[in-house]
Amino acid sequence: MSQVDKAIKRVVLAYSGGLDTSIILKWLQTTYGCEVVTFTADLGQGEELEPARKKAELLGIKPENIYIEDLREEFVRDYVFPMFRANAQYEGLYLLGTSIARPLIAKKQIEIARKVGADAVSHGSTGKGNDQVRYELSYYALEPDIKVIAPWREWDLTSRTALLDFAEKNQIPIAKDKRGDAPFSVDANLLHASSEGKVLEDPAVEVPDYVYSRTIDPEDAPDIPTIVTVGFEKGDAVSIDGQAMSPATLLAKLNDLGRANGIGRLDLVENRFVGMKSRGMYETPGGTILYFAHRGIESITLDRGAAHLKDELMPKYAELIYNGFWFSPEREMLQVLIDKSQEHVTGTVRLKLYKGSAWVIGRESPNSLYDQDLVTFEEGAVAYDHRDAAGFIKLNALRLRTLAKRDRRAKGRTQT
Amino acid sequence: MSQVDKAIKRVVLAYSGGLDTSIILKWLQTTYGCEVVTFTADLGQGEELEPARKKAELLGIKPENIYIEDLREEFVRDYVFPMFRANAQYEGLYLLGTSIARPLIAKKQIEIARKVGADAVSHGSTGKGNDQVRYELSYYALEPDIKVIAPWREWDLTSRTALLDFAEKNQIPIAKDKRGDAPFSVDANLLHASSEGKVLEDPAVEVPDYVYSRTIDPEDAPDIPTIVTVGFEKGDAVSIDGQAMSPATLLAKLNDLGRANGIGRLDLVENRFVGMKSRGMYETPGGTILYFAHRGIESITLDRGAAHLKDELMPKYAELIYNGFWFSPEREMLQVLIDKSQEHVTGTVRLKLYKGSAWVIGRESPNSLYDQDLVTFEEGAVAYDHRDAAGFIKLNALRLRTLAKRDRRAKGRTQT
Amino acid sequence: MSQVDKAIKRVVLAYSGGLDTSIILKWLQTTYGCEVVTFTADLGQGEELEPARKKAELLGIKPENIYIEDLREEFVRDYVFPMFRANAQYEGLYLLGTSIARPLIAKKQIEIARKVGADAVSHGSTGKGNDQVRYELSYYALEPDIKVIAPWREWDLTSRTALLDFAEKNQIPIAKDKRGDAPFSVDANLLHASSEGKVLEDPAVEVPDYVYSRTIDPEDAPDIPTIVTVGFEKGDAVSIDGQAMSPATLLAKLNDLGRANGIGRLDLVENRFVGMKSRGMYETPGGTILYFAHRGIESITLDRGAAHLKDELMPKYAELIYNGFWFSPEREMLQVLIDKSQEHVTGTVRLKLYKGSAWVIGRESPNSLYDQDLVTFEEGAVAYDHRDAAGFIKLNALRLRTLAKRDRRAKGRTQT
Amino acid sequence: MSQVDKAIKRVVLAYSGGLDTSIILKWLQTTYGCEVVTFTADLGQGEELEPARKKAELLGIKPENIYIEDLREEFVRDYVFPMFRANAQYEGLYLLGTSIARPLIAKKQIEIARKVGADAVSHGSTGKGNDQVRYELSYYALEPDIKVIAPWREWDLTSRTALLDFAEKNQIPIAKDKRGDAPFSVDANLLHASSEGKVLEDPAVEVPDYVYSRTIDPEDAPDIPTIVTVGFEKGDAVSIDGQAMSPATLLAKLNDLGRANGIGRLDLVENRFVGMKSRGMYETPGGTILYFAHRGIESITLDRGAAHLKDELMPKYAELIYNGFWFSPEREMLQVLIDKSQEHVTGTVRLKLYKGSAWVIGRESPNSLYDQDLVTFEEGAVAYDHRDAAGFIKLNALRLRTLAKRDRRAKGRTQT
Repeated sequence: MSQVDKAIKRVVLAYSGGLDTSIILKWLQTTYGCEVVTFTADLGQGEELEPARKKAELLGIKPENIYIEDLREEFVRDYVFPMFRANAQYEGLYLLGTSIARPLIAKKQIEIARKVGADAVSHGSTGKGNDQVRYELSYYALEPDIKVIAPWREWDLTSRTALLDFAEKNQIPIAKDKRGDAPFSVDANLLHASSEGKVLEDPAVEVPDYVYSRTIDPEDAPDIPTIVTVGFEKGDAVSIDGQAMSPATLLAKLNDLGRANGIGRLDLVENRFVGMKSRGMYETPGGTILYFAHRGIESITLDRGAAHLKDELMPKYAELIYNGFWFSPEREMLQVLIDKSQEHVTGTVRLKLYKGSAWVIGRESPNSLYDQDLVTFEEGAVAYDHRDAAGFIKLNALRLRTLAKRDRRAKGRTQT
Repeated sequence: MSQVDKAIKRVVLAYSGGLDTSIILKWLQTTYGCEVVTFTADLGQGEELEPARKKAELLGIKPENIYIEDLREEFVRDYVFPMFRANAQYEGLYLLGTSIARPLIAKKQIEIARKVGADAVSHGSTGKGNDQVRYELSYYALEPDIKVIAPWREWDLTSRTALLDFAEKNQIPIAKDKRGDAPFSVDANLLHASSEGKVLEDPAVEVPDYVYSRTIDPEDAPDIPTIVTVGFEKGDAVSIDGQAMSPATLLAKLNDLGRANGIGRLDLVENRFVGMKSRGMYETPGGTILYFAHRGIESITLDRGAAHLKDELMPKYAELIYNGFWFSPEREMLQVLIDKSQEHVTGTVRLKLYKGSAWVIGRESPNSLYDQDLVTFEEGAVAYDHRDAAGFIKLNALRLRTLAKRDRRAKGRTQT
Repeated sequence: MSQVDKAIKRVVLAYSGGLDTSIILKWLQTTYGCEVVTFTADLGQGEELEPARKKAELLGIKPENIYIEDLREEFVRDYVFPMFRANAQYEGLYLLGTSIARPLIAKKQIEIARKVGADAVSHGSTGKGNDQVRYELSYYALEPDIKVIAPWREWDLTSRTALLDFAEKNQIPIAKDKRGDAPFSVDANLLHASSEGKVLEDPAVEVPDYVYSRTIDPEDAPDIPTIVTVGFEKGDAVSIDGQAMSPATLLAKLNDLGRANGIGRLDLVENRFVGMKSRGMYETPGGTILYFAHRGIESITLDRGAAHLKDELMPKYAELIYNGFWFSPEREMLQVLIDKSQEHVTGTVRLKLYKGSAWVIGRESPNSLYDQDLVTFEEGAVAYDHRDAAGFIKLNALRLRTLAKRDRRAKGRTQT
Repeated sequence: MSQVDKAIKRVVLAYSGGLDTSIILKWLQTTYGCEVVTFTADLGQGEELEPARKKAELLGIKPENIYIEDLREEFVRDYVFPMFRANAQYEGLYLLGTSIARPLIAKKQIEIARKVGADAVSHGSTGKGNDQVRYELSYYALEPDIKVIAPWREWDLTSRTALLDFAEKNQIPIAKDKRGDAPFSVDANLLHASSEGKVLEDPAVEVPDYVYSRTIDPEDAPDIPTIVTVGFEKGDAVSIDGQAMSPATLLAKLNDLGRANGIGRLDLVENRFVGMKSRGMYETPGGTILYFAHRGIESITLDRGAAHLKDELMPKYAELIYNGFWFSPEREMLQVLIDKSQEHVTGTVRLKLYKGSAWVIGRESPNSLYDQDLVTFEEGAVAYDHRDAAGFIKLNALRLRTLAKRDRRAKGRTQT
């Protein structure tokens, strides 16, 4: 075990109410001898928060040190939506559901730390994952002198048995189903649920169906497609089937639609920031619909120059979020660029949802750049003269022709 | 009509045997008074080639001036597969089925032009599309002084009626179903079929089902998923379900699987190189399966640094192909970079095909970089020490902490 | 000659007062039979504007149709400075002095066109250069239905003799030194002077000294270096040696310093947007000092993430300006990204100017991110623990080690 | 002090023969009780190697454990030249002289470790710098299970006094001028010399002249310019003034020319990979000439598409080398891309060297893409028709016009 900083007086712990973070809570008390302040957030993970309060009280946390907050709207409005403006996908496929939640939790912990005069923060992420990095980079970016306690990197509770022993010794209640080893670990919020570990560790073996929790099996989905219309304003979804909704309400509604149609499952081997590959299962039902809908509305409202610039920068933007650099100058710079592009991304997109897929089937916008007159076969459109194409091609070809002549000369020399 | 270059003696025409290119054939003879050499290629578009020979003969082309070639293997091996090594998608979605065929046709026309001593080449693409650019950039890049005749930009046959009149006057046979205006235009090859125009011109209106020709409606696809295993060597698919196949045979087999499961439909509004938006429908059944399979095998065999560099460069690479710059130094430079990355991309990927979707469900490779020991929850792996993560995070955070301190100082100054 | 659009009623001409644009003025009147409105701008090219007014009057332009404007401050503040925030260099070397002036002139022409109800605009750039593109893309981006007359692409005055004949026939006064062919052409504004053509056309031959007009020969510059301090606020230069100055005044002052010390000469072969290479000579005395000064102040105030992102995007940004896409969504998106990065780029930079060079020798800022405590050899700094470096390296190396093991395994298989 | 791995039996130390690495040598013996193998390389740092052999013997190293190698040719041919093909500059200015030497030294240490059966390697770089990262990433990439000893991160000799005490106790001879603290530290090889620390730590204060060792003060340089011609083949310099030379000989010759003319000094604040800013002084006399010469020959032999792609990727390439990722898939991928571009980069460049500056004044190539006929003012060139420019501009403008119309419509709606 690393050396313990006994000077720490008060620590704000990201507390879920589950067994692991309860063990951490106790371990912080016993090891650091410091006051623990718990922070439990509702990000739409689908669990009641009041049990967490009760559990914290049971473990000796004073009521004024228990912070519980519903962050669903803030999460979707200020984190999920800005990210979706970029069409962000990590490694071409992953919609970053876990990554995007960490900076918000970290930010709230720091705000509480300032309020209660805490000198440290703590989280329950392990030493091999990305989440420790995302939490801690966010902590440091917001409060550079904060102390960070990462129990999983510090303690000697390195086996399931050791953890359970510690729990028993410290009167932490253990639910029956937590006795044994979990067959996989789960992270969930309003955007997604993900699982990894144990039964998922062999990337050659299909993900067992019981691992999925947010979507029904596409094979069990309805035989009749669902048609849905998503309305956008300045790049953000604002309505479903014509009904205006708040960000979190809208995403929840899309999740319902996605779940029912088996949409948004992803079985992925990805590259972690800490250097190894891992295999995970992601379910992003509403987010997957949103992704295609957003591309759909952009397709008629975004200029080519803007669209291609965004596409070129997207992998870097996604990587920054995946790696935990939400609170960094480069992410903020990319964000203003992306946001600038979204000023006219307004309109509606119709999609067909069916047994695991979401297809765009129509899009409309008062700001459309699609011009039927331009594209139509018949001549006569004011803006387009066929002969212009000849000059356009000629000048685009000029350098290629010069190259070809040079290469011919070069070949000639060689053959002589 | 532009001025006609009467000096042209012999022209190689990309000839499909259809009505439009037959009209062009005749128009070239009558307008330029030059000898026409026809080139008809089998790229897997699904049409017999012999009728094209007969038609050409009927129109007065001498047998020695009729070139017909089966390019399917060359097409897949030297064009489709190199492009798929890059996971190329134009504007995030389009697998470039039309774009990738043009350079090969152009190259063959130039080869024939050299052989028969032709001073010009001609194609049947219109003046508003991308294909004219792709053909002509390729012509010029390969033969810088070649003359190019683009009838659609030159002639005055600017209406359907004018075209049919010309055909009748010149004894060009007109199939009954060609009398009326086609409700949409089609391009097809072994990689895909695409349609655009007329009934597709309103992007708010769903593509009618009769437009699709390569895939059955997902709703009509089997209720039982199909499981398929694709084998890869150095980035290229080489086998299906353990059976080795040539490139074109393999793609054709994937097309069958994709067709049967309704996979690879895309309804897209895209940005053309010539400056306007257009709406197209694409069907890439086998290519869609191949795309996901290739990402799957890369996910365990490609290092993060290599994978992310590829992802960052992909949009530019796809844009180059879309815009017609296959034969350009920058495409070739990107290609060697991509090919370099594929040296170890060998192994097998299992996919589930079901009602419009292709999901990777397993991947294996002798070259796998996935290391179960590294990723497993339990400590003890030689290569990973949890405490390393602390230092890793600390140094990654250092500049963010310095920034935060600077910003705090700056704020302090402002408030004073 | 192309067909002439006789419907044009009133055209706003970018008029310098020189022989060429005077010929254009007359040619527009005689060919199009339309009313000509002249616009003459002071962008710091170093010429009096009143002679242009007299000349225009002499050529029959009504006083109310003569527009003359001093744009120097607007030019530097809204065009030069934003561009310098990006450290923009085209092809690694060229500071874009010509490129950046065109959009401003075009914008003013369009504003005047709206005011006077003109339906067309015209410029004096030739058909082989970049400037025609820059002007016309700007015109169209600001006023999509404007008509553009580019005389050099239209008329048959294709030789010097034809031009002079036309001038004489139309009583346009010809200065004696304009009788003969100019040995090179010049463009100039407050940021730079450039020359190309004739004596410069052989890229193997050194630029003759008489071509330079903005700088003295470094060999003739003072033997004693000049020390200058440039003050910055949010990325823009605001003072010299402690004295606050307006943008144009400041740039003029830097030009004086640069001229005296022979700074900012560039002999370049560059790639034009229209597809050929050209050789030019550029003099950017003040801009060169500004470039290094700005990099200097950024070096202590810009975070690494921000700095590297800017550096990666700079070539694209510079290319956009060079190609004439100042008024495009992608340039504007990049601009907000760049501007966002400049919020703390405040402080002073000291430079040594000496016989052709400008070296940064010191920089200071209240927003400095340089932390002497961090960097110093001695341990003890709070923020840095040497042992963190071990973990940092270990995790950065992890994927490389995994690769090496894979490659060793692969080699083993091959050898067996 | 960290825990010591007593299992280590034999270590290959990068040994300069100086005081610091001699202390390390002894410390390794006494602390690890292992056999030390020294490796001393001549990379053109300008020091005799035989004294290092004597010193190693004096410190008890067996003759067969002393490795001394002249790596100058390999260094320039396989590291410096490939990097210069990319025009690599870190943060826009630094030619990477230190960064590029580390991977080669590391590679040789690993080769020796394999030969002598060593299980560890060691270097003398401190815990705050980039060099530790560059060494160790290279070690791990080449030999994934090697053990690395980084004494500066491990020992408790954390002050100058402690070091000298240790030296005295262990009979390590201390040169008189090493008694006191060095006013700055130096790194040198054939490409450059760099200094940092102490007298250089305040970035506001000019670098004292005595810090420079590779160049004379520009003010002391000759009053007459030196003209030099550099010959290139496939992107690499091969001759000076017509005389063919080996890579190292050529760079040494350029160094002489640069030194004499005061060329290549750089005073820089840079961002280290480990997270802090540092201020350094660099002298790259020959490299600076080479950089401009290479850009010069590329300017006439490289196509625009190739050149711009290279420029866009350069910052990433330079960052990889700076950060120590020479032996990484992504650097190798970029290298093949760059090398591909250099196939025709052959010819000669003339430069003027004068008091700190190197200006290209002429370039010639059998592969030149510069076409005087194309660029000349007079019409008549076959390849260029002025009217093509009209179509080129029109189609490039099309999307901007569509945007402008959209924005006008949008504005109209808002105002109603």
